[in-house]
Amino acid sequence: VTALADLLVAIVGPDHVLDDADVTASYARDWTGRFVGEALLVVRPGSTAEVAGVLRACTDAGVPVVPQGGNTGLVGGSVPRRQPMVVLSTSRLTARGDVDAGAAQVTLGAGVTMADWRRHAQAGGFDAPVDFASRDSATVGGAVATNAGGSRVVRFGTMRAQVAGLTAVLADGSSIGSLAGLPKETVGVHWPSLLAGSEGTLGVITAVRLKLVPWYRHTATAMVATGSLADAVAVLAALRSNVANLDAVELILPEAMAVVAAHLGATPPVGDERTGAYVVVELADHEDPTDALMAALADLPQIHDAAVTTEGPARERLVAFRDRITESISAQGVPLKLDVAVPVGALDELMAAVRAALAAHGGRVVPFGHLAEGNVHVNILDPGDPDLLARDILGAASALGGTISAEHGGGLAKSKYLHLVRTPAELAAAAALRHALDPTGTLNPGVLTAT
Amino acid sequence: VTALADLLVAIVGPDHVLDDADVTASYARDWTGRFVGEALLVVRPGSTAEVAGVLRACTDAGVPVVPQGGNTGLVGGSVPRRQPMVVLSTSRLTARGDVDAGAAQVTLGAGVTMADWRRHAQAGGFDAPVDFASRDSATVGGAVATNAGGSRVVRFGTMRAQVAGLTAVLADGSSIGSLAGLPKETVGVHWPSLLAGSEGTLGVITAVRLKLVPWYRHTATAMVATGSLADAVAVLAALRSNVANLDAVELILPEAMAVVAAHLGATPPVGDERTGAYVVVELADHEDPTDALMAALADLPQIHDAAVTTEGPARERLVAFRDRITESISAQGVPLKLDVAVPVGALDELMAAVRAALAAHGGRVVPFGHLAEGNVHVNILDPGDPDLLARDILGAASALGGTISAEHGGGLAKSKYLHLVRTPAELAAAAALRHALDPTGTLNPGVLTAT
Repeated sequence: VTALADLLVAIVGPDHVLDDADVTASYARDWTGRFVGEALLVVRPGSTAEVAGVLRACTDAGVPVVPQGGNTGLVGGSVPRRQPMVVLSTSRLTARGDVDAGAAQVTLGAGVTMADWRRHAQAGGFDAPVDFASRDSATVGGAVATNAGGSRVVRFGTMRAQVAGLTAVLADGSSIGSLAGLPKETVGVHWPSLLAGSEGTLGVITAVRLKLVPWYRHTATAMVATGSLADAVAVLAALRSNVANLDAVELILPEAMAVVAAHLGATPPVGDERTGAYVVVELADHEDPTDALMAALADLPQIHDAAVTTEGPARERLVAFRDRITESISAQGVPLKLDVAVPVGALDELMAAVRAALAAHGGRVVPFGHLAEGNVHVNILDPGDPDLLARDILGAASALGGTISAEHGGGLAKSKYLHLVRTPAELAAAAALRHALDPTGTLNPGVLTAT
Repeated sequence: VTALADLLVAIVGPDHVLDDADVTASYARDWTGRFVGEALLVVRPGSTAEVAGVLRACTDAGVPVVPQGGNTGLVGGSVPRRQPMVVLSTSRLTARGDVDAGAAQVTLGAGVTMADWRRHAQAGGFDAPVDFASRDSATVGGAVATNAGGSRVVRFGTMRAQVAGLTAVLADGSSIGSLAGLPKETVGVHWPSLLAGSEGTLGVITAVRLKLVPWYRHTATAMVATGSLADAVAVLAALRSNVANLDAVELILPEAMAVVAAHLGATPPVGDERTGAYVVVELADHEDPTDALMAALADLPQIHDAAVTTEGPARERLVAFRDRITESISAQGVPLKLDVAVPVGALDELMAAVRAALAAHGGRVVPFGHLAEGNVHVNILDPGDPDLLARDILGAASALGGTISAEHGGGLAKSKYLHLVRTPAELAAAAALRHALDPTGTLNPGVLTAT
């Protein structure tokens, strides 16, 4: 360790190699406290060249490396394992380029936060296409590496779709990629597509060239009550074909509405005993889209109650029923969090399987999510048997053609379930690809490794 | 050959293994006649399982395979080399699933044409997000494999962004992928992202699950005249931040306007001796966007002349000046076609380099393209020295941070120029990835192979 530490100090300077256990402890555990490992050293390189030096030194020394951005992940992918690892923090990679209005792009260091991406874009007259709750800590590099999602995916896609370019360093210290930001280039392997969602297993992202979208100053929000998940999907289908500028289509199931309403000390804004699924719909545009939203919802027979608001306190009261669900769950305890998705037509079957699993293994479900992607955050309070609940629910999602991780990534937590969603041939091919870029297994061992 | 042919007949049936040179000749040359090779056999499998059998047999026999869709490519990637190869035609993979309105997706066999994708989508109330001129022959599988672009990329991205799922077969006959169409899934290698743009070198795509977009019934089109490429980019920047539903931002340079106007026997609809760049802007929406388009253009000081039209004959007359440029070039001879892109801020420098190359090596340029992506189709009539022209122009594009192939792919044609846009480390990493999936080099040897 001393020899490696000396090498790393020579690369990044003494202030940026941390070995005091009191200091490194916060890098060695995730924010939920469920994943705790040992940080041999924490290294904070200040440039792509320094990242290259660090990776080359660690690979030569046979010491594994875990890249860490904002450390806001939920699946243990950004903290060391029990096996001691070097934590490569991107916290100093915070350079920000000017907003390029012609290209509608901006170049950011991997360590820039999601919130800063948005603020920087808005200062240049644009907006960031991806947003999610951990925006103040989560970094753009981490969001690309985990292919993060959020509520605007229906309009703009996940983080993978936002990457017009990136630079990254492979395990052997080779630098790859470009920040030129070419929206069209087809000359072989497209590094942004490969690295997005690779969770630090193929390379360490050091900077990204991200797309920007228009900054829509007007948002209209509706909450509608439908009789069932099938009705909610019918509403989604109508919106998809009839509405331009659809910005979000979110799902709240009755159990979650009850929990958040109690937490807020408020009555649900819409719905009654007939309601099987609530849908939150947002349109964003340069002009006020409220009339368009009302018109789109007016003739849909699946809706038995609706509230439509534009900006201001009324909208804030409405969206609180979606935005504060997580907080209302946390107020009741630490949930088992399963982040599944299925084809939207299979949502009903998924929830039937969830309820059967609860009946068999115990727990109270607080389900909500992103309707347009069939993505349900299955939060279970007081889980009876977490392992059997996970087995049954992840198994049901995959049996329905769905997935065990929609937007949280695989990390460590899902390694034992990867076989549910990938065939042996696929796992073998993925392992061969990983071995081709990292033959010594330096980068994030255990993460995305089928067991 | 006879032994392999017998094996293939056993897999796909005698009607679908072609060995008559008169019949296979059309599979062995591209439509421009510039790329001609030898088809050992042409095989037309009818299912993913048959594709798997064919690839396994060819890999075992040590015979290389070139996958072929509509064979509309421009870089020689879909026809055999001089070295005899088996042509794997996807022409029988034409199954079409129902339009899934809730997901806004559809499943199509790889051999379905781009035009049929659109027709099928529209029959279900949606539209296809990608369109380009060879739509009647080009297949969706080929378009994904080459990451095709076209004029709507500014709104929806290239083909890579449309793939919600795919099935493919690796060289060893392993099947990978899924057609569930999950917009969010992060559990390791994302096969659609990896296969898109791989030009048949990593696997053979057999079916795709493609996104659909709203079918906007109203289009407004403007042609504006600006003083320079820099002014055109300023117009682009304003449109990007101020306009919703921007569907196309196309570029016509004065040399191309002169050629197409002469071909049409018409006067350019806008512009005069001041005009350095024409821009064609389209908005598409559920409601008529003509007023929004006129408002967006009204205050832009870079525009010295503009024509705005809505649907009907007036619009058709206007768009003919963009759509019929290729035809007007072909009427004058076979051009040298270079498909370059640069960051939009570097377009002026690119065209200066193009004109310098013409002065040095001879030829007349007819340049046009897709402004929003900095993508210029550098068509050169009567090229003096095509090799030196290509060397200088591709070199200039890459020196400006651009690329040697924006939407035509690398194919065979660009292999000797790949070093201009990828470092030795990147080429080595790409080769390692390819070798990991195709260790025997069965799939499309020579294509995307740096020389």
